[in-house]
Amino acid sequence: MTVPQHPSLRKVEINVDCGEGFGQWEGGPDEDLMPMIDVANVACGGHAGSPSIMMKTVALAKKFGVKVGAHPGFPDKAGFGRRVIQMTSDEAYAEVLYQVGALKAFLDSAGVPLNHVKPHGMLYILMQRDEMLCDAAMRAIQQFNVPVYGLPGTLHESIAAKYDIPFIPEAFVDVNYSNDGALLGVPGSRKMVPDEIYKVTQQLGREGVLPSVEYKPIDIGVKGKPFTLCLHSDFKTCRENVAAARRAVDEVNQDLY
Amino acid sequence: MTVPQHPSLRKVEINVDCGEGFGQWEGGPDEDLMPMIDVANVACGGHAGSPSIMMKTVALAKKFGVKVGAHPGFPDKAGFGRRVIQMTSDEAYAEVLYQVGALKAFLDSAGVPLNHVKPHGMLYILMQRDEMLCDAAMRAIQQFNVPVYGLPGTLHESIAAKYDIPFIPEAFVDVNYSNDGALLGVPGSRKMVPDEIYKVTQQLGREGVLPSVEYKPIDIGVKGKPFTLCLHSDFKTCRENVAAARRAVDEVNQDLY
Amino acid sequence: MTVPQHPSLRKVEINVDCGEGFGQWEGGPDEDLMPMIDVANVACGGHAGSPSIMMKTVALAKKFGVKVGAHPGFPDKAGFGRRVIQMTSDEAYAEVLYQVGALKAFLDSAGVPLNHVKPHGMLYILMQRDEMLCDAAMRAIQQFNVPVYGLPGTLHESIAAKYDIPFIPEAFVDVNYSNDGALLGVPGSRKMVPDEIYKVTQQLGREGVLPSVEYKPIDIGVKGKPFTLCLHSDFKTCRENVAAARRAVDEVNQDLY
Amino acid sequence: MTVPQHPSLRKVEINVDCGEGFGQWEGGPDEDLMPMIDVANVACGGHAGSPSIMMKTVALAKKFGVKVGAHPGFPDKAGFGRRVIQMTSDEAYAEVLYQVGALKAFLDSAGVPLNHVKPHGMLYILMQRDEMLCDAAMRAIQQFNVPVYGLPGTLHESIAAKYDIPFIPEAFVDVNYSNDGALLGVPGSRKMVPDEIYKVTQQLGREGVLPSVEYKPIDIGVKGKPFTLCLHSDFKTCRENVAAARRAVDEVNQDLY
Repeated sequence: MTVPQHPSLRKVEINVDCGEGFGQWEGGPDEDLMPMIDVANVACGGHAGSPSIMMKTVALAKKFGVKVGAHPGFPDKAGFGRRVIQMTSDEAYAEVLYQVGALKAFLDSAGVPLNHVKPHGMLYILMQRDEMLCDAAMRAIQQFNVPVYGLPGTLHESIAAKYDIPFIPEAFVDVNYSNDGALLGVPGSRKMVPDEIYKVTQQLGREGVLPSVEYKPIDIGVKGKPFTLCLHSDFKTCRENVAAARRAVDEVNQDLY
Repeated sequence: MTVPQHPSLRKVEINVDCGEGFGQWEGGPDEDLMPMIDVANVACGGHAGSPSIMMKTVALAKKFGVKVGAHPGFPDKAGFGRRVIQMTSDEAYAEVLYQVGALKAFLDSAGVPLNHVKPHGMLYILMQRDEMLCDAAMRAIQQFNVPVYGLPGTLHESIAAKYDIPFIPEAFVDVNYSNDGALLGVPGSRKMVPDEIYKVTQQLGREGVLPSVEYKPIDIGVKGKPFTLCLHSDFKTCRENVAAARRAVDEVNQDLY
Repeated sequence: MTVPQHPSLRKVEINVDCGEGFGQWEGGPDEDLMPMIDVANVACGGHAGSPSIMMKTVALAKKFGVKVGAHPGFPDKAGFGRRVIQMTSDEAYAEVLYQVGALKAFLDSAGVPLNHVKPHGMLYILMQRDEMLCDAAMRAIQQFNVPVYGLPGTLHESIAAKYDIPFIPEAFVDVNYSNDGALLGVPGSRKMVPDEIYKVTQQLGREGVLPSVEYKPIDIGVKGKPFTLCLHSDFKTCRENVAAARRAVDEVNQDLY
Repeated sequence: MTVPQHPSLRKVEINVDCGEGFGQWEGGPDEDLMPMIDVANVACGGHAGSPSIMMKTVALAKKFGVKVGAHPGFPDKAGFGRRVIQMTSDEAYAEVLYQVGALKAFLDSAGVPLNHVKPHGMLYILMQRDEMLCDAAMRAIQQFNVPVYGLPGTLHESIAAKYDIPFIPEAFVDVNYSNDGALLGVPGSRKMVPDEIYKVTQQLGREGVLPSVEYKPIDIGVKGKPFTLCLHSDFKTCRENVAAARRAVDEVNQDLY
């Protein structure tokens, strides 16, 4: 299997989930984070977001020159897209097509290109190992002719390849991985302070390894090439976390890419 | 004010709202109606519909060679889009953009062009007289470069003209108009049986007038030109109603267009 | 373990799920079924129903002298409560308490007693084998001092006993059981026509066995005692099914109880 | 018309809306406010809240010895109950009954009495002047045999009297009133800092008047008697606002009641 290259990614980039409010409830501090990031994954009304939030978030990203990707999730605001929602293959295909299509209308209207698609939460997690679900979502993503973000070495990568979808490997530094390289959620991770985020990002960018939750150096599949780094916008210290990662990424990019 | 012509409409057509189920709840008998209609207005998940229903409805329309328009409505499934939902101009713009954009993704994926946009229920009704709302919705519709369906002589027509959106006049024969030509809802209308629908459609197509709820002949703005005729798919007798209108429309088209 | 008796049940009864519409979408033909049933399980706004539907359904049951139970389900109208919704123990407890409490207000207001609680769909199915979920739901049900309907020999029965909740065994004759006595859903069952429903109900009422999906006579735990018989209200032939079961139940009750 | 007295209110009290989160989105800082307030109005899943949030909020109030009232609102989380939702009289009656009934189940389960009902947001506002809506909501509230909070001199008071519902007059000091004594929303009010809140509360408690938005002293109908004072929990300075009001109320109560 030959994975298509991702010529659009020439440097390490930072992506953050944005537009994750609902009604009067606010999501993360998008206005504070936008100046520090390269890419915003915009919620599409499934796990969070609404048409008017999407419109505002696209305008905000455009103002800061931040690239915009679609961030579709299970249609479950009560669970923030972090619960399994059972879907047939057709339902999953249709759901992703619907959400990304809706965001596309805001981007077209704003004259901003769709940069990529990055599934959210439990959809992203299940797509690593549930072939039916991953296949359905990838077929929907394929319709938009943009890269997909995902975890290297999982179904994310192999099914993207099956559909000739450019694959951009994603790494996380504010949550941890197991010794086997499996991405852990917030409950399974240790608390990452900005200083550690800075160091881990440096190490990952230069050596392609980072410490697992048990401090074992592990290769998560991004060695020797640019990748996209995800930081959470719903952590209390997200501003400091992103600032620390930004500093490390800028230094790595200057030296290597 | 010069209203742009609608070169795409050369004959009288019949449109019906389709895909108006939700979850396990069914909408109208789309499979029975599709063979008799020219155009399906597909619900976009606002007042009814869901991604998988939209996918199935687009596939059904394609199978029968029926043209597909977007049928955005207020985001209110509990009220089926028939209640006023207060929105700012930005919210209304974003809502219409979202819903039509989502449908567009299904059409693109199926290789079916977007034929038009027709707002649903209370959104359609309010747009006749609420300039802020109509303006916001029309600006969203303008993004898709397709005609809009609406009631002639109302803000539907004049604001479409303001944005150079081709305007296709719509007429109703299974509900009534007041003597002043105002469209009445189901509660204000008399029951229209198929025979009367046939006769009224003939009269409207040939003479450009139809009987008001009080049997006064009125001009509803479609005299001497093709129009699109809407039949309800949620009436118990909808199959017979559409069949009667179909017969009348075919005869009118054969003789006049 | 001694299961508390259910002194309230002296005859075989027929229960049907009612009030399962949403907004303008209708549920089953409640008005047609009410005259033929003993007990209505009223949806509580989780998988179906709404406050005004609940009010109407309680009034309808009262008019026909039909007893009313609460029919809480997973809060998932898009999936009609037939999908797994992940919940913590606290969430499941709170959800059942919320829904039954809401129905109780309508019953109190109408002067109708709460007859029982019967969980719906996937909640009912999972409660057979998911101890955490069953325990949480039963603790909520316990607050209302009424019996619970459930499948004999499963956690339904044993956890009801743990909380001293009177347990009323439930049987199904319009869907099937496996040879092992496990209740099968609609997809796994053969089509049951009214004649067969009549015969199976007779056999179950008199001998305490019924034919499995593979026609093997099986004991489903109701031998020699009254039980409650559930018929689906969302089958096309539900009127005829209920009428057939009603005739059989009346004959069994006359001869045995 | 003789308005029933409210023997339960012997001192000025402070009430705050609590439990107004949804899913992972948080409402106000309930834990910080609880130690400073007398009464919590708990959202019932209509405009905000969920079964598990209601359970936690009731437990929190119980822990701090805070009385609990029901806070039903229009069923519109996307609009936070601050938009008009059109309802028939039956629908409004059923909606209030549903929400208060659901909360009652949590209170019964926790052994905490229902203290009162206070409608939320646009429901509260419309009930001042929409007789059909106010009548429907009051008939639902009547079922629970508890007082209602409302604005003196409006339909809140007169329709409560019609149904013999004890009426507790409510006053606001973190938003303003017009010179005519009409309650203004946040957009129409000037910003109230804690010092001003302290002074206004003192003046209102002792003299029964407060300054309008234009600084004219006005009588809002609570002169010479205890009332309940509402503070917003969704203002950034809500902790300081409530602390200031608490100090003033304690001083007033010590001197007068």
